Amino acid sequence: MSVGAPHTLGQAQAHLSKGRLGTRITWVQASPSTYLESHPDEIYDIAVLAHCLWYFSSPEQIENTLRTLATRAKHVCVAEWSLSSATWNANTHILAVLAQAAMECRKPQSESNVRTVVSPASIKTMAGKAGLTLQNEELISPGKGVFDGRWEVQAVLDPGFLKEIDEFVKDDREKGVVLAMRDSVVASVERAGGIKEVRSMDAWSAVFATRIV
Amino acid sequence: MSVGAPHTLGQAQAHLSKGRLGTRITWVQASPSTYLESHPDEIYDIAVLAHCLWYFSSPEQIENTLRTLATRAKHVCVAEWSLSSATWNANTHILAVLAQAAMECRKPQSESNVRTVVSPASIKTMAGKAGLTLQNEELISPGKGVFDGRWEVQAVLDPGFLKEIDEFVKDDREKGVVLAMRDSVVASVERAGGIKEVRSMDAWSAVFATRIV
Repeated sequence: MSVGAPHTLGQAQAHLSKGRLGTRITWVQASPSTYLESHPDEIYDIAVLAHCLWYFSSPEQIENTLRTLATRAKHVCVAEWSLSSATWNANTHILAVLAQAAMECRKPQSESNVRTVVSPASIKTMAGKAGLTLQNEELISPGKGVFDGRWEVQAVLDPGFLKEIDEFVKDDREKGVVLAMRDSVVASVERAGGIKEVRSMDAWSAVFATRIV
Repeated sequence: MSVGAPHTLGQAQAHLSKGRLGTRITWVQASPSTYLESHPDEIYDIAVLAHCLWYFSSPEQIENTLRTLATRAKHVCVAEWSLSSATWNANTHILAVLAQAAMECRKPQSESNVRTVVSPASIKTMAGKAGLTLQNEELISPGKGVFDGRWEVQAVLDPGFLKEIDEFVKDDREKGVVLAMRDSVVASVERAGGIKEVRSMDAWSAVFATRIV
């Protein structure tokens, strides 16, 4: 609740609760699967997965959640980073999340922002298997005030990232690949003209219909 | 000898052998370490490693070769792809070689063009440990006629690449990362306007002095 900028999650939720629709909002902090299991009779109009899939611990956990939602919500809306951009300086963001993902997947348990990297193509494949039908999708280029690109790049530039590569990527050939991925981020930041010039990649959003529409 | 474009390696060598300096050239096709071991008394003015390090089977093999050359050649010149570019459409090439490297490092034996991906930063670190001193380095932006970017991207787009991910990347989380890397290449090709618009990343060249200068 205390993370986020320019406003923290807690501040944003407090702001919404004070608004005209505030009385209709209930905030619940829980993992989706735990919450859904403990409320087995609720059917929802819309389930929104907003920039949260990369926090899931595995592709399997994402697919299982989509499969449950297909039977519990009429529509499922997803927003996630697209791993794609038309802006040169956003390529640094793409390289940084891939470098993080390549390292995090070697940890027994990840606490990073990029625990399970999934592309729009992969989410659509999983959604199809889970019984969801794509209704529409779009790419959104974030403005200069969206700093996620910088943050993820900073995490890779941090000397702690090098220590974690040493700790978690044991095989020398695999270690070499993650190091090269980090070096491509370093080079990309230099080419961009410094970390402040790094932009965020495009976001992707999609609306899926379920079988209970 | 039959690979390469617009001329094959064999054609290029034949052309050079017919030239004014042809009589001074001896072509030898052998692995560097095997050749050096079988000619222990030869000392060379210059050893050139021209876009060959990514074919080595491990970072260790590269470092060992540099260590041997530090005692056998007066200068060591290296040229390799830089994992860096100022051109948007060359980012596709960078993503493609990283995706290949992330998959190839899981094969017991790789026959790909990207068996061991190493950045200029990493090569300089290995060279320093091997006893080489950097004298100068530069980046070179290849012209539109250099198709390596296209070729490496094509290798990742090939359905065979997906089959190899399935065969060689067993862990589901690790598989997810390599698939996301491939998807970032697919998205990047689309954004570039098709495979024909993909450019090659910058090459890096460096001259090192050894202790026997």
